[in-house]
Amino acid sequence: MANDRLARQIAFIVEADKLKAVLRRNPLTYGSRLENSAEHCWHLALTAMALVEYAPPGVDLLRVLELIAVHDLVEIDAGDTFAYDVAGHDTKHERERLAAERIFGLLPPEQARELRARWDEFEEVTTPESRYANALDRLQPLLQNMQADGGSWRAHHVTRAAVLRRMAPIEAALPDVWSFVLDVVERFCACGAIVVDDSGIPDVRSGAGPG
Amino acid sequence: MANDRLARQIAFIVEADKLKAVLRRNPLTYGSRLENSAEHCWHLALTAMALVEYAPPGVDLLRVLELIAVHDLVEIDAGDTFAYDVAGHDTKHERERLAAERIFGLLPPEQARELRARWDEFEEVTTPESRYANALDRLQPLLQNMQADGGSWRAHHVTRAAVLRRMAPIEAALPDVWSFVLDVVERFCACGAIVVDDSGIPDVRSGAGPG
Repeated sequence: MANDRLARQIAFIVEADKLKAVLRRNPLTYGSRLENSAEHCWHLALTAMALVEYAPPGVDLLRVLELIAVHDLVEIDAGDTFAYDVAGHDTKHERERLAAERIFGLLPPEQARELRARWDEFEEVTTPESRYANALDRLQPLLQNMQADGGSWRAHHVTRAAVLRRMAPIEAALPDVWSFVLDVVERFCACGAIVVDDSGIPDVRSGAGPG
Repeated sequence: MANDRLARQIAFIVEADKLKAVLRRNPLTYGSRLENSAEHCWHLALTAMALVEYAPPGVDLLRVLELIAVHDLVEIDAGDTFAYDVAGHDTKHERERLAAERIFGLLPPEQARELRARWDEFEEVTTPESRYANALDRLQPLLQNMQADGGSWRAHHVTRAAVLRRMAPIEAALPDVWSFVLDVVERFCACGAIVVDDSGIPDVRSGAGPG
């Protein structure tokens, strides 16, 4: 290719295709198969558009959609770390940092820095945009599990305390959606899909402490 | 749910999950399986970010990402119409119009109109944003086929004339990328993955006229 800059951009785009092969733990809404991280990212973008009226005031939707588009790219190398896997989360940061170096590094240098900064912003969860995107990244799997008879909660014996801790960012970033989330959690506790553990003994399966 | 407005928005988000089950004709870049329309939409968004410097001057990237996020939702009801299927394209418009009525209609009315307007804008291809999004929607499958040994071109005996007609919007909207596209097409003609038909006889398989 005569144009080295375009060649690097095409290489990045082509590499990104691999995210379609990274499987998450939650199923599609009718339980037919596990969701992959690429289609999850699209679903988050659409959710960000549909729920923007509940987002932190003044949120920049363009920035939100940019954060969402890049937020899982590192999983091409680092894999998807299950939200309720405590051991996996211990090594997640370093695995993902190395992946970000390689994958964004396919782009021309100044563009690599720009898109990498979007990933850093998503990870740091300090801006209104990243708080909104992060909350959606908790909400969307809840909707998937809700539609799939408990999905990954049921399959992995996740406790109520662990689910509520995972969902907590929604309360801060999307307060008007929080009572809906609590209703869903209670409903799935009541039917046994989420483990109600009020014993005070930390649950080693999910790493969750008491609720 | 106490809040009917949120309930409608959640219903729309949950319905959108079905796009992950709509298969396109082109494979993933390593040919492992066909691509679905949801992951395609995410890949288009990332491509829009990576190639924005080649877009029509003054393009609004937020609008582009919004168009991309909704552009294939109608396929939940209408299915994916193969780019080289002339008969399918005769009925595509009406099938997709009915789908848009139903799917966007799940949202609260004024939000339904707003998101439906995004889909209309993508379809009409009259704004800089829709011209850019439309061109990317041609370019991304070319990259998929390029990485998958000819992909849907080879599988469906698509002619050079049909490919060039399909890719034509790229020349207008992304002129700096056009020579790359031509190089790819010629390379896949040379290896036999794209049918070179210079007979002057229209090719009924793809509906293509002479090149």
